[in-house]
Amino acid sequence: MAEKIKKVVTIGGGTGSFMLLSGLKDYPISLSAIVSMADDGGSTGILRDELGVLPPGDVRQCLTALSGASDIMRRLMTYRFEEGGLRGHSFGNLLLSALEKITGNFSVGVEEAAKILNIKGEVIPVADEEVNLFMELKNGALIEGEDEVRHNFDIKKVGIKRSYLKPVVKANKKAVRKILEADLVVIGPGDYYGSIMPNFLVQGISEALQKTRAVVVFNCNLVNRKGQTDDFTMDDYVNLINQQIGKERIELVTFNTKKPDKNLIKKYEEESMLIEFEKEKNKKRTYRVIKADLLSGKRSRYSKADAIASMRAFIRHDSKKLARVLMTILEPGKH
Amino acid sequence: MAEKIKKVVTIGGGTGSFMLLSGLKDYPISLSAIVSMADDGGSTGILRDELGVLPPGDVRQCLTALSGASDIMRRLMTYRFEEGGLRGHSFGNLLLSALEKITGNFSVGVEEAAKILNIKGEVIPVADEEVNLFMELKNGALIEGEDEVRHNFDIKKVGIKRSYLKPVVKANKKAVRKILEADLVVIGPGDYYGSIMPNFLVQGISEALQKTRAVVVFNCNLVNRKGQTDDFTMDDYVNLINQQIGKERIELVTFNTKKPDKNLIKKYEEESMLIEFEKEKNKKRTYRVIKADLLSGKRSRYSKADAIASMRAFIRHDSKKLARVLMTILEPGKH
Repeated sequence: MAEKIKKVVTIGGGTGSFMLLSGLKDYPISLSAIVSMADDGGSTGILRDELGVLPPGDVRQCLTALSGASDIMRRLMTYRFEEGGLRGHSFGNLLLSALEKITGNFSVGVEEAAKILNIKGEVIPVADEEVNLFMELKNGALIEGEDEVRHNFDIKKVGIKRSYLKPVVKANKKAVRKILEADLVVIGPGDYYGSIMPNFLVQGISEALQKTRAVVVFNCNLVNRKGQTDDFTMDDYVNLINQQIGKERIELVTFNTKKPDKNLIKKYEEESMLIEFEKEKNKKRTYRVIKADLLSGKRSRYSKADAIASMRAFIRHDSKKLARVLMTILEPGKH
Repeated sequence: MAEKIKKVVTIGGGTGSFMLLSGLKDYPISLSAIVSMADDGGSTGILRDELGVLPPGDVRQCLTALSGASDIMRRLMTYRFEEGGLRGHSFGNLLLSALEKITGNFSVGVEEAAKILNIKGEVIPVADEEVNLFMELKNGALIEGEDEVRHNFDIKKVGIKRSYLKPVVKANKKAVRKILEADLVVIGPGDYYGSIMPNFLVQGISEALQKTRAVVVFNCNLVNRKGQTDDFTMDDYVNLINQQIGKERIELVTFNTKKPDKNLIKKYEEESMLIEFEKEKNKKRTYRVIKADLLSGKRSRYSKADAIASMRAFIRHDSKKLARVLMTILEPGKH
């Protein structure tokens, strides 16, 4: 009997999603990537300000990861102009912004880009409206915008009072439907405050995760971000996400067990440090953990199109290893 | 017996080539568009200055005309950003410049763009090096750059001493080969000093035209440009081009006989005026003339992708009518 094609939904943004999707796209699954829409840094920020478009950066990375187009098309998507008035602009961002202008709607533009790039699966902006991320710290400081949040290193020390999006936006209906219909929902990896959390601040995402019968997995990050998530253990991440969802919804966590090269750890030390499994034994753990070697090996294994990932992170997941482990979850009775 | 597919080469640039190729692409011919590379105005000029790339504008128009890609891809190629630092940049120009940067070579970039755009035929930059157009007038004035030439209105009054490219560049080898192998070479229509003449200033093009056994046709423009080609008749254009080639090589000229609407003529009057067939009877004419209705009708017939043509010229060729007439030249014994 032919098995039904399994529906897999990823939630995230940034290079974490790029890596995850690069691995998952080789499997015979129905794949939907839900992408954060709060980015306002770099080329994306300039395009938002000057053209009034929605942020293309995270969507671009997901489209590129899933693209079945020629190598040159994938290289175009990650190309950045280096000189003059175009300096810093990603060609892929310009493509998405031009398509938004031509079609008059960001999501429609993303669909057209998906056709041009011949992508496997679907990339779904978590919301279809302009939105900004705000974070209020316990000392009253207000951090405005995702880029500011990403570069604020008092977050851990001072503590967060609340995070919110302005305006309050409803989730893209398609994102909600995909979560409800999914067999497997995969959250992360990714910068927690910058790429993961903003998805849950959109109205309807947490509710859909409460309701769906999908298995919900969290890919635990490899490193903590100094000043932001220092000393976070795997449990801390899971608790934070479960709080956002409003239910202990995470059933499985993938956790890397392979130690990175000592030199890499050193190189990384000033910005971040490896995430520990636990500080003391957690007897009431509400989720199961899949421990595996998920670590990427040599940098040279990465193609040019993967350069965005390889430049930003020295210690990172191996997309193939992670995808292989995630696929075992879809095998009945495996975990 | 199956007939051999006829080889047609066009020489030009700008909206004239866009119109011509839009019509020719529907016929079962082998089509090669040789394109001027001296453009330095607008978005193209900024990209040349800031990125050090070769001028994408004319190539972009030819690629768009020949594209068999989706309507949205054609719209992307003609889309111009309207705000901020990107203002005025054509998305298609950015595509070509990014491809030149990625591949390290303009012609290779054009070939990649041709694949992405699924074009019929081939677009060949007349030269593959950076080059600038200069024009010295009889009063000693030096006009630097194609854009300056295009907007200098003393040319007719003062008279031209000489025109040249700097540096002296050799023609793209493929352009030369295509001319030598052609059955039909079609020159123009187009702005004479801006889009047509610069092709003949590239070393090797005139020589190839002297040698080729192709029928050489000139599509006579519809209007003269005030301050530049005032009062030029058909004969004047043919003589100028034959002088450039160094041989009376033009055998056929297409000439429009349909009078445009009086209101259009009026609208146009300040910039240009209709080209006359002849002032007095030319008994020694070295070429035959195909007179026909080649005039475009309503503006509304043009698709969005043709907008670049329709915005710039009110009195213009109809691409389908012109292509139909040109195709009759390939029928044996017709002209």
